[in-house]
Amino acid sequence: MKGTVAVLTDFGLADAYVGIVKAVMLGINPHIRLIDISHGVTNHSILQGALLLAGSFSYFPEGTIFLAVVDPQVGSSRRGLVLKTKHYYFVGPDNGVLSLAASNDTIKETAVLENRRFFRKDISSTFQARDIFAPAAAHLSCGLPLKAFGRPAETIEKIEIPQPVRKGKTLVAKILYIDHFGNLITNIKKEDNPWISENNFVATLNNKKITKSYSHYAESKNNEPFFVIGSFGYLEISLKNKSAQKYFSLKQGQHPGFKLRFV
Amino acid sequence: MKGTVAVLTDFGLADAYVGIVKAVMLGINPHIRLIDISHGVTNHSILQGALLLAGSFSYFPEGTIFLAVVDPQVGSSRRGLVLKTKHYYFVGPDNGVLSLAASNDTIKETAVLENRRFFRKDISSTFQARDIFAPAAAHLSCGLPLKAFGRPAETIEKIEIPQPVRKGKTLVAKILYIDHFGNLITNIKKEDNPWISENNFVATLNNKKITKSYSHYAESKNNEPFFVIGSFGYLEISLKNKSAQKYFSLKQGQHPGFKLRFV
Amino acid sequence: MKGTVAVLTDFGLADAYVGIVKAVMLGINPHIRLIDISHGVTNHSILQGALLLAGSFSYFPEGTIFLAVVDPQVGSSRRGLVLKTKHYYFVGPDNGVLSLAASNDTIKETAVLENRRFFRKDISSTFQARDIFAPAAAHLSCGLPLKAFGRPAETIEKIEIPQPVRKGKTLVAKILYIDHFGNLITNIKKEDNPWISENNFVATLNNKKITKSYSHYAESKNNEPFFVIGSFGYLEISLKNKSAQKYFSLKQGQHPGFKLRFV
Repeated sequence: MKGTVAVLTDFGLADAYVGIVKAVMLGINPHIRLIDISHGVTNHSILQGALLLAGSFSYFPEGTIFLAVVDPQVGSSRRGLVLKTKHYYFVGPDNGVLSLAASNDTIKETAVLENRRFFRKDISSTFQARDIFAPAAAHLSCGLPLKAFGRPAETIEKIEIPQPVRKGKTLVAKILYIDHFGNLITNIKKEDNPWISENNFVATLNNKKITKSYSHYAESKNNEPFFVIGSFGYLEISLKNKSAQKYFSLKQGQHPGFKLRFV
Repeated sequence: MKGTVAVLTDFGLADAYVGIVKAVMLGINPHIRLIDISHGVTNHSILQGALLLAGSFSYFPEGTIFLAVVDPQVGSSRRGLVLKTKHYYFVGPDNGVLSLAASNDTIKETAVLENRRFFRKDISSTFQARDIFAPAAAHLSCGLPLKAFGRPAETIEKIEIPQPVRKGKTLVAKILYIDHFGNLITNIKKEDNPWISENNFVATLNNKKITKSYSHYAESKNNEPFFVIGSFGYLEISLKNKSAQKYFSLKQGQHPGFKLRFV
Repeated sequence: MKGTVAVLTDFGLADAYVGIVKAVMLGINPHIRLIDISHGVTNHSILQGALLLAGSFSYFPEGTIFLAVVDPQVGSSRRGLVLKTKHYYFVGPDNGVLSLAASNDTIKETAVLENRRFFRKDISSTFQARDIFAPAAAHLSCGLPLKAFGRPAETIEKIEIPQPVRKGKTLVAKILYIDHFGNLITNIKKEDNPWISENNFVATLNNKKITKSYSHYAESKNNEPFFVIGSFGYLEISLKNKSAQKYFSLKQGQHPGFKLRFV
């Protein structure tokens, strides 16, 4: 049976951890198709993992199983989950990393990973992606129903994306993460802020100003920071062919707030 | 239908961009085979993308579709292309990233990506790899003929590799790029410079000298820089088990010129 | 014929080298399944490659072919090998990178890669992964017997993991490598040192002390370094949700010794 498992972790690619997770799945379902979403999530950043998953899952074919492991509490009593949503399945720790994507697709059924029959025999305290989550994803790809894994989860941990706050003529917003090109992904959604396209604002980030928004990179001028609707549906702060991260002197992993004042 | 798509981008692997591009292709052709060439092209470096594609395409099986996206002008009016060559297909922006490889294999047919039927419905201004190029590659892998995508391209953008210049007894050459091992890939082709194997030269790069060439790494001495024919057919400057990049104090992304004087 | 080849190299992912190796295998066996173990082995570190391979191979399905290339002597007279073990196959240079994993699974048959019929036609002095090892792995995946590749290897190069030494009440041990999370993998095996779980010791690394061991990350306190049995079966030095590498001021690639005194 050929299922697709899309994998997202903070394991990096230098060690063998991702390869081992895939090996375990292949051992259970030799016909499985494996796709990487990212293994470069900042270590232990549940928020970043949740954002990347929420921003990417809907492009995958219906029925795709998402194995998402960012798991700072590995080895503690935090539970493992399988979630069935309208079009997909999600497997991972119950710490919020799945919740944003799964909620966006509407959760239909849940199971706590507790049936040890579907764990590996020896369970490490440090590598449950290998011992619990990968086996669950692989068994799911073979058609195992959710109830086989354990009882339904009555509630699941949620992660909240901090929302921008409007105070009079000022919007207090935040950088959620910084991508490979140095684009700064903010927490402002286009649909919530139609007024931003009118260039009637001054935003201030790290003591530098942004006064422009464009619908295409190509409209912008060189060395001029601007807002643009990014591919995830959030406003991003960008520079044409340059890194906004460098322009604003930010480090990877920083999440500074910024203010946007309407004029 | 099982086609192979080999993917080259400057997207990096930390974000979900590469995963999303693959997801879109899988949604169109669930039997597609996906192979990564590299996603570590220096941001917006069309030349580096073109070199990596030109240096790798010929090792792939006949019929492979190359999806190559290094696209600093995304969202502008630059066109998208499908190129059919003697043995392969190439999909990407019309900015030169495809031209070197495609020309090397002899271009047989071209199409401009303009038939919106084969685009995704909502086209982002910042992520046409997802919305235009990936769908084209996937449809191509299903057997769609080039004319379905649009009219032929009368001309395509070319990228020129800077050639070394001989002035009397001196050759003025250049570092094209620096690889993971710190090898410095020059723009001198072995076939153009048979004399270089005779060690009758002094080359000077960043105030340090190179006076040796070897046919194998293993012939060289420790801490001695030398020329060797690299795997791409260009002369490379290397050090045995060390990084020539460090030895010559170069930064990744630097493309210094150097002089080679025959003595 | 659908064989699985798991690939481990020190080639990095920024260049096209890994893609080319895969392309060559696909050209020989279009049905091959390719899985990455890691391409982030420290350049030329045979020990690290051997450790990653030894720590990961047993999770793969029986019959998996491991292509492992960390090859500082490429182009010299060092031989290439195919090894058949109890459950697997290993292909790579005869420099020890295969020996630890293959020995752990019991070597049953060996062959030296010398039959040029199974090499690529033009053999580069710098890229034998492409020209010799990848073709061998691909032909093996098609069912070619070992004897087709060459005569048996009478001996093979071994790599020894430095063992901890006990001197009276002191154990002199070593950091073998540092993973992506900054965990320090030591050369102390759990089974050899059952006493370590009793917290009757003081270990000293880079002038900082470790006095605790836990069976789970989650049991530890914040900012407290501790020993834990890692996923490879060795004791690791970790900090809860932090990098032990940073805590102990170590650089990636450092392998410092440390002392552990029983009290």
